[in-house]
Amino acid sequence: MTLRHFLELREYTAAELADMLKLSAELKIAARGNTLTRSLEGKTAAMLFEKPSSRTRVSFQVALAQLGATAIYLRQEDIGGLGNREPIKDLTRVLNGYVDVVIARVFKHAGLIEMTQYAVMPVVNALSDKTHPCQAMADVLTIQEHCGRLEGLTVAYIGDGNNVAVSLAVACSRFGMKLRMASPPGYEAPAFLFDWLVQEGLGDFVAQMHDPRAAVEKADVVYTDTWVSMGQEAEKQQRLEVFSGYQVNAELLTAAKPGVKVMHCLPAYRGLEITDDVIEANAKVIFDQAENRLHFQRGLLAYLFR
Amino acid sequence: MTLRHFLELREYTAAELADMLKLSAELKIAARGNTLTRSLEGKTAAMLFEKPSSRTRVSFQVALAQLGATAIYLRQEDIGGLGNREPIKDLTRVLNGYVDVVIARVFKHAGLIEMTQYAVMPVVNALSDKTHPCQAMADVLTIQEHCGRLEGLTVAYIGDGNNVAVSLAVACSRFGMKLRMASPPGYEAPAFLFDWLVQEGLGDFVAQMHDPRAAVEKADVVYTDTWVSMGQEAEKQQRLEVFSGYQVNAELLTAAKPGVKVMHCLPAYRGLEITDDVIEANAKVIFDQAENRLHFQRGLLAYLFR
Amino acid sequence: MTLRHFLELREYTAAELADMLKLSAELKIAARGNTLTRSLEGKTAAMLFEKPSSRTRVSFQVALAQLGATAIYLRQEDIGGLGNREPIKDLTRVLNGYVDVVIARVFKHAGLIEMTQYAVMPVVNALSDKTHPCQAMADVLTIQEHCGRLEGLTVAYIGDGNNVAVSLAVACSRFGMKLRMASPPGYEAPAFLFDWLVQEGLGDFVAQMHDPRAAVEKADVVYTDTWVSMGQEAEKQQRLEVFSGYQVNAELLTAAKPGVKVMHCLPAYRGLEITDDVIEANAKVIFDQAENRLHFQRGLLAYLFR
Repeated sequence: MTLRHFLELREYTAAELADMLKLSAELKIAARGNTLTRSLEGKTAAMLFEKPSSRTRVSFQVALAQLGATAIYLRQEDIGGLGNREPIKDLTRVLNGYVDVVIARVFKHAGLIEMTQYAVMPVVNALSDKTHPCQAMADVLTIQEHCGRLEGLTVAYIGDGNNVAVSLAVACSRFGMKLRMASPPGYEAPAFLFDWLVQEGLGDFVAQMHDPRAAVEKADVVYTDTWVSMGQEAEKQQRLEVFSGYQVNAELLTAAKPGVKVMHCLPAYRGLEITDDVIEANAKVIFDQAENRLHFQRGLLAYLFR
Repeated sequence: MTLRHFLELREYTAAELADMLKLSAELKIAARGNTLTRSLEGKTAAMLFEKPSSRTRVSFQVALAQLGATAIYLRQEDIGGLGNREPIKDLTRVLNGYVDVVIARVFKHAGLIEMTQYAVMPVVNALSDKTHPCQAMADVLTIQEHCGRLEGLTVAYIGDGNNVAVSLAVACSRFGMKLRMASPPGYEAPAFLFDWLVQEGLGDFVAQMHDPRAAVEKADVVYTDTWVSMGQEAEKQQRLEVFSGYQVNAELLTAAKPGVKVMHCLPAYRGLEITDDVIEANAKVIFDQAENRLHFQRGLLAYLFR
Repeated sequence: MTLRHFLELREYTAAELADMLKLSAELKIAARGNTLTRSLEGKTAAMLFEKPSSRTRVSFQVALAQLGATAIYLRQEDIGGLGNREPIKDLTRVLNGYVDVVIARVFKHAGLIEMTQYAVMPVVNALSDKTHPCQAMADVLTIQEHCGRLEGLTVAYIGDGNNVAVSLAVACSRFGMKLRMASPPGYEAPAFLFDWLVQEGLGDFVAQMHDPRAAVEKADVVYTDTWVSMGQEAEKQQRLEVFSGYQVNAELLTAAKPGVKVMHCLPAYRGLEITDDVIEANAKVIFDQAENRLHFQRGLLAYLFR
């Protein structure tokens, strides 16, 4: 087995991502039919979570349990903060001796990169300040299920050009979907994303704009995320003002294709980035999307250990 | 399988509760003989605990492990408080996609009820401000073991008419035991309990009074609980005064039947609601009672999934 | 099975410790060959940790999982502090009914002793203020692997005469190694250690001194530990001054045998008790030492339940 980490979708080819997605969909069917193979039987996973989480944590713990592995959940207090009590290089080398995989949710993506320099087991990014690859792949699985295909679809992302947006952009471009991102000035997706898209010849697949209505125009899927992520509480008031015109509501959706699917990676703040009626009308998609975190991550773990 | 929740004993008939108790007793024997069937093999449980706990948490985790299920323990910080970070209806629908059962210890019973409106898996009440059904059923199992029977026994409950008292009253009445509750004025069991007893034709089984000596008179079992529960620290001094005449001690027990069994759901505060000598003289009963939390809850889980 | 606890190495004979070490080494090989027997299948363990920990916690959880047991990790908040919310004797008797073993990391060793007075299952010391037997046995396993033998070796311990030093001294004397401890005046190992050594006729195996250079002289192994342990933050500045001449660095090591192995139980504070270059030159030994926590503890659990 060649050691592969999973820090960013950019590190995987379109074929590899398609492969992962296929495996995830297959294992989802197997799980429902109770025919899942416990391919990680006897293995152990350290889950290093600097930030609390319900979706990410529960979905990973369930995925590990179903594959036969044991999860060891370590909170920030348990390890004294990543790189605070002891250098990341020491923590990583210690964990090398104990566990088969590290699943980490971190404040600083650089910490994940440092881990991979010392790790002899896979390191999985369960959310960093830079990217959220597990979310984006679960999103792609959801779109595939609800739209019946991926290639040629148009996705609109309304809101902050954050870690979720970056990974969604990479995923859309890799799977042949167009992504139109509408963000307020100053909150666009970071330059490294567009540099990478150009470098990969995928520049046409992702467009950044400021007008949400233009982004939503004839979209198959409209996606949004919270305006204030964990750790941004201090700038909450300012953000609520800046993003006030970026709400996904019934009025905005009139510009989209009939039958548009609305997605949200949750938690959702009703009346801010999305309205209650839009969530409830799209509840099947949105909670399938949450559930697909489990299905993708189970597929990912099986992929990394096959 | 029909979906049943376990929020309150009142939702179950006498026959159903007897069935659960029988199953619990059988699985206790099976566990001791190492012949337990792992009837929840491969299943996962979310344990949502807004309040810390040692007994409830450890007994449920052991029960789940012995039945083959994996427990995911979520503290208040992990989920951001039930209904705070995201609405209970969203959290519940997310968990629907991940786990097979939710076991919740909550500040507000209403939150449990809201969960059941969205849950497609069983929701189990592991303590709410209103009731504590798992404790009461473990208590009944303990009485059965130590007294050899249930029907016709007289139980005295001395102290606060709290969640434990309410569930104990329902359990006693369902199993044909008389319960005499002695509480200070203003701390009696709530009206909804007595309304329900009357409605079910069980009014004769439960009596509320103020005099502990009258309650204990010829009782087969004397039961008490802490005077100051978690969350009541602010009214501690006042409570200590109000309850000062309600201590279960050797003197009080002279009024009971010879061989009376003393029970306590723990943690016990020696010198307050109970004396050290009474605890130690009844240690076998009291720690069997604690252990029976495991045995009843294992039976309950097996019952809900059979 | 006779009930044995594991609070201190002093409670075990040289032959018993050798037996444990042999079993640990055998299971290490078995684990690597995927031929480990799940000898604790279906068992449950309560891990009571008053202090957070990464190495101790993860290594025990992995050991338990690999042997087929389920770990229930209880933090200080979960149990309300050992002996605070309820007496240790009550907590212990409750746990007797639920779990097969207690693994405890405590502030006060006396609490462990109190537990053993009520426990009907093994109690394992996973670090107390007095001793750290699991660490010392993992150290011995590491020395055996890296030096090819134990008897006749000379080990130098530089630093605080703390719990780690005490257990290391007992382990060295039991396995025929000489230990020279260099500590600043006032920070020597406690008198009970030397009393015990004399009583056991092992007085020649352990020497306490103040001069680190004298301790390191021709040593096969040089061992150090942090100058400021968890809970000593208040005296940090004072300790840094007192221990300033006790750094393990390249200069000090010139006095040792060529090929000397440097050990550290981690976390390490570079530039204080040890220099970065010494850690990195000895990384293989130091991280094997950390990994051997897992291997010894797995052996210990198998030993206690065989």
